[in-house]
Amino acid sequence: MYTREHFEKLDKQDPLAGFRDQFALNPGEIYLDGNSLGARPKKAAQRAAEVLEQEWGQDLIRSWNTHHWFELPYRIGDKIAGLIGADKGEVVCTDATGINLYKAVATALKLNPQRKVVLMEGSNFPTNNYMIQGLVAQLGSDFEVRFAEEHEFADKIDEQVAVVCLTQVHYKSGRLLDMQAITEQAQQKGCLVVWDLCHSAGALPVDLNAANADLAVGCTYKYLNGGPGSQAFIFVAKRHQNKVNQPLSGWWGHNAPFNFERDYQPGAGISQMLTGTQGILSLAVTEVGIDLMGAADMQQIRTKSQALTRYFIELVESQCGEYGFKLVSPRDEERRGSQVAFSHADGYPIMQALIDAGVVGDFRAPDILRFGFAPLYNSYADIWDAVQRFKEIMLTERWQEPRFNQRHAVT
Amino acid sequence: MYTREHFEKLDKQDPLAGFRDQFALNPGEIYLDGNSLGARPKKAAQRAAEVLEQEWGQDLIRSWNTHHWFELPYRIGDKIAGLIGADKGEVVCTDATGINLYKAVATALKLNPQRKVVLMEGSNFPTNNYMIQGLVAQLGSDFEVRFAEEHEFADKIDEQVAVVCLTQVHYKSGRLLDMQAITEQAQQKGCLVVWDLCHSAGALPVDLNAANADLAVGCTYKYLNGGPGSQAFIFVAKRHQNKVNQPLSGWWGHNAPFNFERDYQPGAGISQMLTGTQGILSLAVTEVGIDLMGAADMQQIRTKSQALTRYFIELVESQCGEYGFKLVSPRDEERRGSQVAFSHADGYPIMQALIDAGVVGDFRAPDILRFGFAPLYNSYADIWDAVQRFKEIMLTERWQEPRFNQRHAVT
Repeated sequence: MYTREHFEKLDKQDPLAGFRDQFALNPGEIYLDGNSLGARPKKAAQRAAEVLEQEWGQDLIRSWNTHHWFELPYRIGDKIAGLIGADKGEVVCTDATGINLYKAVATALKLNPQRKVVLMEGSNFPTNNYMIQGLVAQLGSDFEVRFAEEHEFADKIDEQVAVVCLTQVHYKSGRLLDMQAITEQAQQKGCLVVWDLCHSAGALPVDLNAANADLAVGCTYKYLNGGPGSQAFIFVAKRHQNKVNQPLSGWWGHNAPFNFERDYQPGAGISQMLTGTQGILSLAVTEVGIDLMGAADMQQIRTKSQALTRYFIELVESQCGEYGFKLVSPRDEERRGSQVAFSHADGYPIMQALIDAGVVGDFRAPDILRFGFAPLYNSYADIWDAVQRFKEIMLTERWQEPRFNQRHAVT
Repeated sequence: MYTREHFEKLDKQDPLAGFRDQFALNPGEIYLDGNSLGARPKKAAQRAAEVLEQEWGQDLIRSWNTHHWFELPYRIGDKIAGLIGADKGEVVCTDATGINLYKAVATALKLNPQRKVVLMEGSNFPTNNYMIQGLVAQLGSDFEVRFAEEHEFADKIDEQVAVVCLTQVHYKSGRLLDMQAITEQAQQKGCLVVWDLCHSAGALPVDLNAANADLAVGCTYKYLNGGPGSQAFIFVAKRHQNKVNQPLSGWWGHNAPFNFERDYQPGAGISQMLTGTQGILSLAVTEVGIDLMGAADMQQIRTKSQALTRYFIELVESQCGEYGFKLVSPRDEERRGSQVAFSHADGYPIMQALIDAGVVGDFRAPDILRFGFAPLYNSYADIWDAVQRFKEIMLTERWQEPRFNQRHAVT
């Protein structure tokens, strides 16, 4: 049996322990929802104030030059590239994930013009499916979205498929796909692969170029701690750049945006993936989180993440096992991202009671309790303390208080 | 001949004079570039700090409910609706202008499925043309963009045209189109009209529903003072809602986003125009500028704007007339937005010297000096002072100093 001391000792030995103090965390609260919205780096407030006071307030329109606003998507993109195994000039930070996915899959379809099928995982985070359903409807009736679950990939990735579009870590279960193997398998069938890294970037080592990845997208507001709704990113491998135009062809992707020419001419390289003017306040603040992540060792993050999720599963099962929680995440930690999901018929009120007790996870319909682990700010002692509170809620049946069953607009 | 006293007297009588103190302005600087990036409302800093400290920092993921992040596009949209003659439920604040234009024109094409031509103004702000060129390329070779300048509209708006897509106030010249007359003319030919209000919203009275407008888009970072790159807006008249789906169909536009269903089902009404997660920091701060504008009388704004532009033209022509500036904006103030453009072969270094002297306008290639007038924070005395500095620069030939001819990345 473990004691709290065991976890305190792990914290003392943790090479990442120093990062925790860089984040604004509520005293006494254990935040296990960084897979939905990452915690706020303390320096984000300072950066926002700079943009407000100096850049917008005083320098105003001159900031496009003096504070390099126009270059932010590239500068931040290059930093993200370093976190996901991409090269400089392969990533820009811009727009929302769904918008970038639309660009990426549209691009991939144009790069593979003999085929008309996009293969997606039906249980994926739905907006990905929605966006590509919208794209395909736009392209006409000879285009098609096909759905497959993981066990069907081998069969369904075939010579009809133009583009395989998958999320590496599943938003509900935390299941981690083998990017290298699937990319290779799909490319052998003549497909291109678009990877969604929303739950991988900053959570574990990703090496896009080692996997010979084609295109990818991802968000910065989860493990990269960029702030609520902060701009997403898009990756296009160098070998695919400058061949086709993505459809959202705005002036930021033009080869000479300040020439104000009538007709679109694509910018070189990754710049063509840009569309319109970005919300500078959100974008500038995003960089603070990216910089913090860039200062950490991704292998140390993975090692700690695996330990945190392993201990959490072990403790929940040993201390709350009798209450009928079922592990939904892979037990094999090599196949698990940085989150743990349990199913329970009363998952909703139990999660509300947990949040009330200062253990913040989230609920995903119909019955999933989801816990995310951010090695930069979650400690080992957090795991122990979270499960003690969890056990207390189950033991006292506090989750049955009617207030915990009141549904929120956003769950 | 005028004196400064004349303008000081006008300021004393100005019913909008009290708004100036609500903005962060640099002492001694005359900011005439609010048509590119509006000045910062002082309260924006406080709002940003709330989002940073309380909403993201402390309440974290709970803010989706407790601070109504998910509702911001609607709440701010309804406030914008009040500024442009739209009803509640017809406007959302989301994404960039170009992305919204793509949605709007794609929607309009679907609403008019027998026709395949989009008519645009070739001299329009280029990103509009670029976005629709991208859309049309996506839709296939039977679709077409046609260009017309204002004098050709009567001829070229014909029965082949599905969608007329025009910017009400021209970004270079400040020319104001007659929304009501053009809408009526186009609708008589069976076209739909998509209006771009980037240089109209907050600059002059716009009454979309009185003009029977179909769809519209616009930005919030110019006359609405929402902050650099703040989210844009999109308007769809009630009569056109719920009929077709726009192509960027993301989860924020789903009818039950938290059911996490596999297939897209459009949300009701204006919600279908939403796509993905918004940068909350930029979006929340945008509301401060919209609220300020909402507290002003739009007819008073127009009256003051016309006086400011009229005096500016008169003073530049009388005091700097000998230096060869040519008025590009309409002389008839009923046909002019809230900006004044002069052409001059040496426009670039002259504008740089003006900025150096604390008169901030901007330059648009090849030869346009552009000055925007924001009645909420520009005073009448600003006009007098700006032209005195302008005259001094021309008289002393200071603009010929080599440093003023060094080109910036962003002009």
